[in-house]
Amino acid sequence: MASIENGFQQLNEKSLVDYIKSTPSLSSVLGDSDNLDIKEVGDGNLNFVYIVTSSSSSLVIKQALPYIRCIGESWPMTKERAYFEATTLKEHGRLCPEHVPEVYHFDHPMSLIGMRYLAPPHIILRKGLIAGVEYPLLAEHMAEYISKTLFYTSLLYTTTTEHKRAVAEFCGNVELCRLTEQVVFSDPYKVSQYNRWTSPQLDHDAEAVREDNDLKLEIAQLKSMFCERAQALIHGDLHTGSVMVTQDSTQVIDPEFSFYGPMGFDIGAYLGNLILAYFAQDGHATEGNDRKAYKKWILKTIEETWNFFYKKFIALWDENKDGSGEAYLLQIYNNPDVWQQVQTKYMRDLFHDSLGFGAAKMIRRIVGVAHVEDFESIVDAGKRADCERKALNLAKMLLKQRRKFVSIDEVISAILQADP
Amino acid sequence: MASIENGFQQLNEKSLVDYIKSTPSLSSVLGDSDNLDIKEVGDGNLNFVYIVTSSSSSLVIKQALPYIRCIGESWPMTKERAYFEATTLKEHGRLCPEHVPEVYHFDHPMSLIGMRYLAPPHIILRKGLIAGVEYPLLAEHMAEYISKTLFYTSLLYTTTTEHKRAVAEFCGNVELCRLTEQVVFSDPYKVSQYNRWTSPQLDHDAEAVREDNDLKLEIAQLKSMFCERAQALIHGDLHTGSVMVTQDSTQVIDPEFSFYGPMGFDIGAYLGNLILAYFAQDGHATEGNDRKAYKKWILKTIEETWNFFYKKFIALWDENKDGSGEAYLLQIYNNPDVWQQVQTKYMRDLFHDSLGFGAAKMIRRIVGVAHVEDFESIVDAGKRADCERKALNLAKMLLKQRRKFVSIDEVISAILQADP
Repeated sequence: MASIENGFQQLNEKSLVDYIKSTPSLSSVLGDSDNLDIKEVGDGNLNFVYIVTSSSSSLVIKQALPYIRCIGESWPMTKERAYFEATTLKEHGRLCPEHVPEVYHFDHPMSLIGMRYLAPPHIILRKGLIAGVEYPLLAEHMAEYISKTLFYTSLLYTTTTEHKRAVAEFCGNVELCRLTEQVVFSDPYKVSQYNRWTSPQLDHDAEAVREDNDLKLEIAQLKSMFCERAQALIHGDLHTGSVMVTQDSTQVIDPEFSFYGPMGFDIGAYLGNLILAYFAQDGHATEGNDRKAYKKWILKTIEETWNFFYKKFIALWDENKDGSGEAYLLQIYNNPDVWQQVQTKYMRDLFHDSLGFGAAKMIRRIVGVAHVEDFESIVDAGKRADCERKALNLAKMLLKQRRKFVSIDEVISAILQADP
Repeated sequence: MASIENGFQQLNEKSLVDYIKSTPSLSSVLGDSDNLDIKEVGDGNLNFVYIVTSSSSSLVIKQALPYIRCIGESWPMTKERAYFEATTLKEHGRLCPEHVPEVYHFDHPMSLIGMRYLAPPHIILRKGLIAGVEYPLLAEHMAEYISKTLFYTSLLYTTTTEHKRAVAEFCGNVELCRLTEQVVFSDPYKVSQYNRWTSPQLDHDAEAVREDNDLKLEIAQLKSMFCERAQALIHGDLHTGSVMVTQDSTQVIDPEFSFYGPMGFDIGAYLGNLILAYFAQDGHATEGNDRKAYKKWILKTIEETWNFFYKKFIALWDENKDGSGEAYLLQIYNNPDVWQQVQTKYMRDLFHDSLGFGAAKMIRRIVGVAHVEDFESIVDAGKRADCERKALNLAKMLLKQRRKFVSIDEVISAILQADP
């Protein structure tokens, strides 16, 4: 057993049993805690995750260690991230309980969260996308989650007083923000020991990213927005690996990167990862399944996600237009014309931000440190490189030209054009 | 003597003597503190200000009360603002000691600052501008102050870690931010009990502001930027009443509205108030002095302020390009072309922000709650209204068209065009 420091102790399958037994908020969920089955399943990059099962129930325990698990103690990372993850799970869960798993317990000194176990058939969405599984409710569910969590934590709904209090609190999650700044907005655009790509096939493509002045101009603006703009409490890492799904359930997990940042970063991360999933499909095609129908479904999901989001977000705004939010006072925006104009402007800017951040997230997954299983699972390097190059070229174009796009339809057309 | 509450006690000329005698950091400045002369001179809107003089020296004592002085206890306002004022005086003073008065003492429970007395011939810049006095070093000095305070507190110089720590701290100054939100970005665009204007001459002009959808669209964007964008530690109220001058000294005071906000808010506040001073000149013209030469000097000062600022800011950025700032890494912006491109882009955006905020500050001084002495001191209401209308129309145009302006020369031309 590891030593105890400031109340922190790294647990293992064995010591976790004692911990649970002495913690009523956990043992009460499990009922009989005499015969616990404990399985470590942390396949993410950062933390230890245990599934705990009793004779009658189950739960998940997640513990953060003071370094990045997949790299080791050489890359220290504050375990305080668990505090922000628990806080955001609870806050986003309050705003959208349908799509955020319940938190039973948080132990701050231990950086430990006890939460609902998302039982099979729940799987990570990314794995479902690789397997070619359609989720008919996914677009609607994700639009629901994104619209509610972003709207209610923005100045469209909250007062300046509450907003600044919350912004100040989440400034504490600075180490995770710095990690994003480095791996999303910096490393792919310079020589870095952590960058990798399908080599030698993409050697020239990676170099081209590092030598593209226009791209660097655009990424600088997005980086500034990421660092400076406290628009809403964003998840901060909303890729398809942070979503668990079944045919009728969609659950968003792992908000340890959460902070008050630009809304477009969440929307873009999610849509960008769907686009990556799209471009990976050709690598997963087999003789029996050319994935053509599935690619169409992904495109439809991208389109519907934005369109549902747009509708839901505007509906929330309209419903709360005489609420406590101080950004757009009804006494100022007091006629239907101007009301519609400000909403249209707001959503167009958000659309452009989302496309920019989405493109940045795509680029970093192809030439940066952390790749996606969508591409990594394509064994044939030549085939993988072809898929990645198409995605990379689309992302570069989106990043530079995003302000020219007016609707998600045009983005779908651009995807189709990049995949002739 | 007022009652003491949580260590706070409102001082007066008499009790202040005892306070100073028992406070070494103050009495040591004054030397002999047996025969103190104390004069209350707070002509601002918010606080009590005392000039304290001994036989050998002098200093200023400023105390914040828990309401807005010029309105009274009916408009409560946290006295915590004194903490932020003292913190920013010290921080901006560290970065630009030439143009910020020294803080000798801060008493948090008492919301009391002891600072350097800016002795005559120092006067408030606004009064000098009304009197028609030229200050040959003003443009250079203000450019120095603005460039240093903004550059060094931005992510161009500081690390994300230090930036987020400081942003969190200044989130505490939320009440003063809310006051600005209300009086600058909201009230002038709606019916409000606090609004006033030269009536009946400007009745139609004030109404036109409240019915201008395009203007409302633009002010919404600026308000969002003010609330959400933590770009640098800004003064927050940098009008010509927050600057004291002599022929060779320029001192910036009163940063109680300071917080991490958009740089353009400071630059715009200052330039916007110079433009107001320009349009007020016709109201101060006499037979012996038509103020034409002085108007030219103001325009030259506006032009030089921006141009000096531009040069100094870029020079600071270049000097610190391989420093600890993480926004524009030299390894990414690694050729002269891209380096120049990002700087040009950054400064163009900042220019547009400054014009927008400057215009907003002009508008609110003509149809909002707090007016400027430049216009108020024009006794003839008809003449005053003519001056104000010209300024208001220019401001409306600048707010809507600001993105079309490329250089400060073009702004000068627009001012001349608005004043045929």
